[in-house]
Order: sequence, then C-alpha cells, then structure tokens
Amino acid sequence: MGSTEITRTESLMNAVRSRIANRALSPGDRLPSVRRFAETMGVSPSTVVEAYDRLEAEGVIRARRGSGFYVTGADLPPMALAEMGPSRERDVDPFWVSRQSLDAAPSVLKPGCGWLPADWMPNAALRKGLRALGRADDTLLSDYGSTRGSLALRRLLLGRFADEGISATADQILLTSSGTQATDLICRLLLRPGDTVLVDDPCYFNFQALLRAHQVRIVGIPFTPTGPDTAAFEQALVSDSPRLYITNSALHNPTGGSLSPQTAHRIVSAAAIHGLTIVEDDIFADFEPTLSPRLATLDGLNRVIRIGSFSKTLSAAARCGYIAARTDWIENLVDLQLAINFGGPSPVATELIAGVLAGGSYRKHMDEVRQRLTRARKDAANRLAALGIVPWIKPRGGYYLWCRLPDGHDSTALARRCMEDGVVLAPGNVFSVSQSARSFIRFNVAHLGDRQIFSSLRTAMKEAAR
Amino acid sequence: MGSTEITRTESLMNAVRSRIANRALSPGDRLPSVRRFAETMGVSPSTVVEAYDRLEAEGVIRARRGSGFYVTGADLPPMALAEMGPSRERDVDPFWVSRQSLDAAPSVLKPGCGWLPADWMPNAALRKGLRALGRADDTLLSDYGSTRGSLALRRLLLGRFADEGISATADQILLTSSGTQATDLICRLLLRPGDTVLVDDPCYFNFQALLRAHQVRIVGIPFTPTGPDTAAFEQALVSDSPRLYITNSALHNPTGGSLSPQTAHRIVSAAAIHGLTIVEDDIFADFEPTLSPRLATLDGLNRVIRIGSFSKTLSAAARCGYIAARTDWIENLVDLQLAINFGGPSPVATELIAGVLAGGSYRKHMDEVRQRLTRARKDAANRLAALGIVPWIKPRGGYYLWCRLPDGHDSTALARRCMEDGVVLAPGNVFSVSQSARSFIRFNVAHLGDRQIFSSLRTAMKEAAR
Repeated sequence: MGSTEITRTESLMNAVRSRIANRALSPGDRLPSVRRFAETMGVSPSTVVEAYDRLEAEGVIRARRGSGFYVTGADLPPMALAEMGPSRERDVDPFWVSRQSLDAAPSVLKPGCGWLPADWMPNAALRKGLRALGRADDTLLSDYGSTRGSLALRRLLLGRFADEGISATADQILLTSSGTQATDLICRLLLRPGDTVLVDDPCYFNFQALLRAHQVRIVGIPFTPTGPDTAAFEQALVSDSPRLYITNSALHNPTGGSLSPQTAHRIVSAAAIHGLTIVEDDIFADFEPTLSPRLATLDGLNRVIRIGSFSKTLSAAARCGYIAARTDWIENLVDLQLAINFGGPSPVATELIAGVLAGGSYRKHMDEVRQRLTRARKDAANRLAALGIVPWIKPRGGYYLWCRLPDGHDSTALARRCMEDGVVLAPGNVFSVSQSARSFIRFNVAHLGDRQIFSSLRTAMKEAAR
Repeated sequence: MGSTEITRTESLMNAVRSRIANRALSPGDRLPSVRRFAETMGVSPSTVVEAYDRLEAEGVIRARRGSGFYVTGADLPPMALAEMGPSRERDVDPFWVSRQSLDAAPSVLKPGCGWLPADWMPNAALRKGLRALGRADDTLLSDYGSTRGSLALRRLLLGRFADEGISATADQILLTSSGTQATDLICRLLLRPGDTVLVDDPCYFNFQALLRAHQVRIVGIPFTPTGPDTAAFEQALVSDSPRLYITNSALHNPTGGSLSPQTAHRIVSAAAIHGLTIVEDDIFADFEPTLSPRLATLDGLNRVIRIGSFSKTLSAAARCGYIAARTDWIENLVDLQLAINFGGPSPVATELIAGVLAGGSYRKHMDEVRQRLTRARKDAANRLAALGIVPWIKPRGGYYLWCRLPDGHDSTALARRCMEDGVVLAPGNVFSVSQSARSFIRFNVAHLGDRQIFSSLRTAMKEAAR
C-alpha cells in the first residue's frame, strides 16, 4: 500500500471523527454505506473499508452484522464551554480570574477579585444570626421551604424597592441561589440559541461566560462614565434586534460608573420602542452613598427585570440572589427553578440573611464600609499614580477602580507575570467583548493593602518595558 | 367594508401574531412586503395594509420610513415550560405535586410529597451544627469558598464511595446546589436540543420537567421490580441512539424497586457497547438496610456519573447535592457552574452538612429512621388494603409505596378530588412518560399518619364509583 493511499485513509478517518466531534454524527448513528461514502469522498471502496476498520479498532465506530457501521460515542468529548464561543488565550478567559481567585491559597494576594476581604463583612451579625438559627423550628431547619423562598426576605426587599419608588408585591420576587443564577434563569426563560444580547463594553466578565453557555450572540455597547453610549445603544436596537440587555446601573462592574438621569431615560425609552427586555443587576446598590438613577424605577418592573444578591455586602457564603419582575414572568420562573433546582437558595441561608438585614447593625456596618472604601479608593489612586496607573473615572462608591496602564503596557501580560508572584490581577480584556481593553485593568481597592502587590506590579512593568 | 373583509384582516393579524409567538418572527425582524404577503395569503394588498396598520396600532409591529414593517417584540410572551413539550392536564403536570406540596399551608396533608416530615430529620444535630458555625472563622462565614465546594464534605463522600468499592479523588467531586441541579449541570454539558434521553417508566417526575427544559426527546423504559426492562433498554439503545440514561439504582422513585446484580451488569455492558452515559441518582442510598448493586460500582465512574443529595436524610433546607464523575467532565462542570451560578452550594450549608455527617449521631439517627419506616410501610400497606389499594412491590427501604388502585379508578381524578379536602396526592401519570400509570399512585408512608387522608380517599373513591 503506497503512502498516498495511507493519507487518503487517514483523511477519511479524520472526516468521520470531525463529523462525530461536531455532532453531525451522534452515538448510535449509522455511517454511510461503503459504496456511498466512497462516491461522496471520491475514493475507492477499499479505502473506505480500511478507514472504517481502523476506526473500529479505535473503538470510534462499531460494525453490526449485516447492518453496517455505527458511531459508538465512546470518544465523544463533552461539550466544553470553550466550544460555545471564540476561544481566547487562557489568561484572558473569564474563568481565569474566577478560578485563580476562588481556589487561591490563603497566601495569594487578590487585587483582581470581586469581593471584600472576609474581615470587612458583618461577621458579628452573621454569628449572632447562626446562634439564633440554632433555636429555629424543625420546619425551617429541614424542609425545602416555599417555591419563591423566604417571605420575610422578600418583604425586606419590597421595603427597599419602595424606598426607590418601585411598588411591587411579594409574588413578584423569586429568591435564587445567586445573582448569577438569577441571570441564568432569566436567560433560560427568554433566550434561545442564536438570539442577540447586549452588554456593556466593558462589562462583568461572567456575563460573557454565562451568555456563551446560552449560545447567543453577544454585542457590546461602549460604556461611558454616565452609562452606555446611548447613540450606540439605539443603533444596536435597530441593527441587531437584541432580545435582552444586561447591565449594572449603579457602580458598574468593572468601571464604577453610574447611570445619569438622561441616559436612564433614553435607555428605557428606546427599550420600550423596540420591545427590549432589560436585566438590571443591582448587586452593588448598598455601596452607593445616595441612590443614583435606576432603570427599574423609571420602568416600574414592566420590561426591566431587577436582580440582585447579598454576596457583596452581607455574605457570599450564604448564596442568595433574587429576581423582581412581572408576575407572569415570575410564575414561569418558579416552574423553571423547580425543574432545574427543585427550588431556590437554602432556607437556612435566607433566614440568616433576613435576620441580619432586619437587625439594626447592618445599616451601621455599611456606613462604616462605605467610609472605609472612600479612604481605600483615595489611597489606591495615590499608590497607583506612582506607577503611572490612572483611574478612568472616580467612582462614587464601591471597591473597583478601572485603570489605564502607561502607554504600551498590556494588562494580560502583566497578569500572567504577577501571577508568578502570587498576585491575581483582573486584566481589562477579560471584561471586553471587543477585546479593546488591553491597556486597562480592574483593581479592587479593598485588596490593595499589601505593599507586595505594588512591588510585583512595578517589577512586571519594568520587565515589560525592557 | 363587509364582514368577510374584517374576518380576512383579523385572520392575517392572527397569522402574524402566531408567527411572533412561535418565534418564526423575532423582535426586529422585517415582515413580508405587502405585495408578497398578499400573494402568500391569497388576499388583496389592501387587506394586508389594513392588518399591518392595526397591528401597528396595537404596538405589535412598527413601520420604518421607506423600509417596511418590523416586529417590536412588545408583546412577545416568554418561553413557557409548557411550550417545551406536549401539554397535559394541569393536574398531572409534574409541577402540580411540587407546587402543591412546597407551598402548602401547614394544615394541608401531603401523602404525595417526596420528603420526610420535619420532625423525622436530625434536628438536634443540625442545631448543634449551627451553634458550632457561630464560632467558625470569618472566611467560612462570608467568602465564596472553593470552586468544587467544601473539601471536608467531598472527603466524607470519598469515604462512602470507598465503602461501595468506588475509588475516586476529591477532584472528581463537585458540590452542587441540589441533586436536581447536579442533573441539570450534566444535561447542560452533555445534551443538545433534540438529543434522546432514556428514563424509567415510571420515573421521578421532575426528571421529565428537567428534560423538557432541555428540549430533548424523552424515551421511557418500562421499569420492573429489579430495575429497567433490560431487553427494552437494549432495544432502545439500538433504535433511539440515546445520549444519556437517568435512573435511581436503589429504592427507585416512585416504585421503591432496586436493581438486581444481573440487571446492573446488563445495563453497564450495553451502555459500554453503545457509548451511552448514565446518570445514577443515589439520593435514597441512606435508606437502604444493606447496599444493593450500583451501576457506578461496576463501571467505576467512567461512563456512569454518580449524583446525590443530602435533602432526604439530613436537611432539604441546606440545599446541597453532588456530582462524582471523570476528572475531565468535572473540570468542564466547574467552569459551567461558575458561568451559571458563580459557584455551588452555600459554604455555610455544606459545613453544616459535613459536621452532621462526621458526628456520631447521624448513623444512629438513620438506624432509627429505617426502623420507623419499616413499621410505617407495613402500617400503610394494611390501611391501604382496606381500601383495595395494593402496593406493586414491597420495597426494601425508603418511604415510597407505589400502589395500584382498584379496577376502574383514576388516580388523577382522585388527586383532584382529595385536593379539595386539603390532601395532596401524587397520581401515577405524573411519573409516567407513556402516561400509562393512571391506575397507580405513589404514597409517602411517613406522611400517612393522619386518618383524614384515608377518609378523604374513601369518600373520593366512593364518589368516583357512582
């Protein structure tokens, strides 16, 4: 057998393998007959026979007496998230920052992470709440709880909505396992593969990871210091017919920007004209010194869906988020959450959260956290300035500083280099749909206390400049 | 304008509305031109113009100068789960039992529910665990925790696996928000719309609700007292090319049956030949008096994925399940869980579970629960016999009795009637893919203590017999 013949056989084998990998052929499917495949591929039947025999030897396909060859599926890889969208360098993958931060050894420094250090959280109130739960009744400790989740916690949320000027009923709120799961449930209800979704550019990196899992098209709207660029937003509504827009209205992740009243009004107006649904993720609300404009406030929970979570200000270990929306949507979401999770967050955890929120200490605690963060933002800006790293805007609250590196520096390279020193950074392109934020980086000022971070940054930048 | 003309216009309007509802037309899509739509529908252009004008007045479509009419999406309903599969009478909907049971007033009796009464659970150990958590360190109380979840709990699971003869590493386990969420994650990784999935007929009703949310084809395999009918299983592998089989090996829901060694061997062998992946839901394991055969034990976590939960024996309020599988699949599932939930169950809840499992009292508690259930199954069988209701098999453990009603009785009608008395039943067809279990009903013997249940059943059956 000549070498050309071998190449043809292998090329046939690869053709079969790739049809299996892309699921044009599924496990149990019959392969084309030898004669038909030979004709299709323009080779001799004996070449097909050899290719099939070798694939059988590999366990990829299997002969059945008198009936042909079938795909076994033995080597079919599971669908990886990487398949769901364009692959990227591993170090600007949205999962990179998450996994490095979550699974980090205690010695690792995490100025790129998205939460406060544990000792900034209301731990005394949490401990008190756990002791109180030790005296709760059996039903709370061991039953599933109601389908929408703790009524006490939903009522506390209604009180907050009323302060914003949003009137709603307890039936319009569904508690979820997290803010992310809230978004996921909404996407599962409203989106189908191939739909278009608008996000801010830059935006919270996990919005992109989530949307890729839904196999939708992601369109980024340039973000300005007062919210999304309204002209670009309106243009996208016309040209891309998006089904959904996901955003943070206040203390936007990663920039720290907040909506202006004019931007909020234009976004809600344009959404109404084009029948767009908006998910407003209000996870950073309690870090605001005073309430800035909200889309849900203008719209009144009609086409704007409000989501949020208690992970950033109260406890990420409790795992609880919420959705507030039109009653008919919530009804459908209740069924969906039953189908995929048989309910929502831990009732033990939601009772703990409700207890802390209802207690007097939480408000005082957040006052202190806000003051501490104001100082930390100022300190961080000063220390970063010494390295030529400059905040894009001065946020009115929260712990993020979205910063521009000195000319020519690449935040992805910097993140890779600093990781060697045990410092996890959040490079700009992790957040950018258009991959245009290579010279930006997001810092969490509450995690910038250790001088080693700055020395690692300085060294990395010096090396890069060589 | 004559009445015929009005009818034609309205019929055109309905045609457009239904294309939008079924998403043949999406928000932003252009409608056919007036001339083309007139031709297609066999009406005059003026009729189309009138239909489009009226739809525009309703806000359903919108004219753009010189460019035609576009769908606004203003009235597009969200995708309901009911759309995802054949609709059924509301009272045999898989959500019916769940929602009636979960949202029931305390006075409602729930012999149809899928869990133990709260006072059967290890509440003393849970209270002790909560008090201990009140002394835990800040990190545990307020941080997200690691991506795979509590290492202490994963190690406890490894010990149980070793007792079954399954060797695995802590990296092969991912903690999830529930057993249902475990199944959902696996489906999201491995399935695509249109794939075929095998389940037992009857099976846990929520498997069907979950699979419908994934828009896959569900094929039921008749369930026998020793597991699925192996001949039907093997035939389905050939004729339906399923991607996945989801089952309970031990104390199967709803029948209480457990796999025989021969059935287990044949299932694992057939799955290997056809490249089938199996999800083995082991949620009732701790109710078994002695360990019965398991698919994962024969297969060794290769193509069998083990899932489970602590909701049935420890606390449903903790909300925690797990997946044990091949390392490469778990790696992908970690990314997926980050994308859709930014992590798994509450670390506070998993620490609570690990504490109870590690303590000496849990084993003793389960010994008592098993004894109590043995008595309850016997009592229930006796009391049901007086009504002519007969268990299909005598399960070796657990709280389910899958019972046949006397000839001619319809469990769906019975459930509807008993609900009027405040008694939630679980009618057979809720569990049956083929809808062939109308004369069956699943009782939870731990919830059959109240005589009112039997008097309600007796009255309903008498009325039905009239």
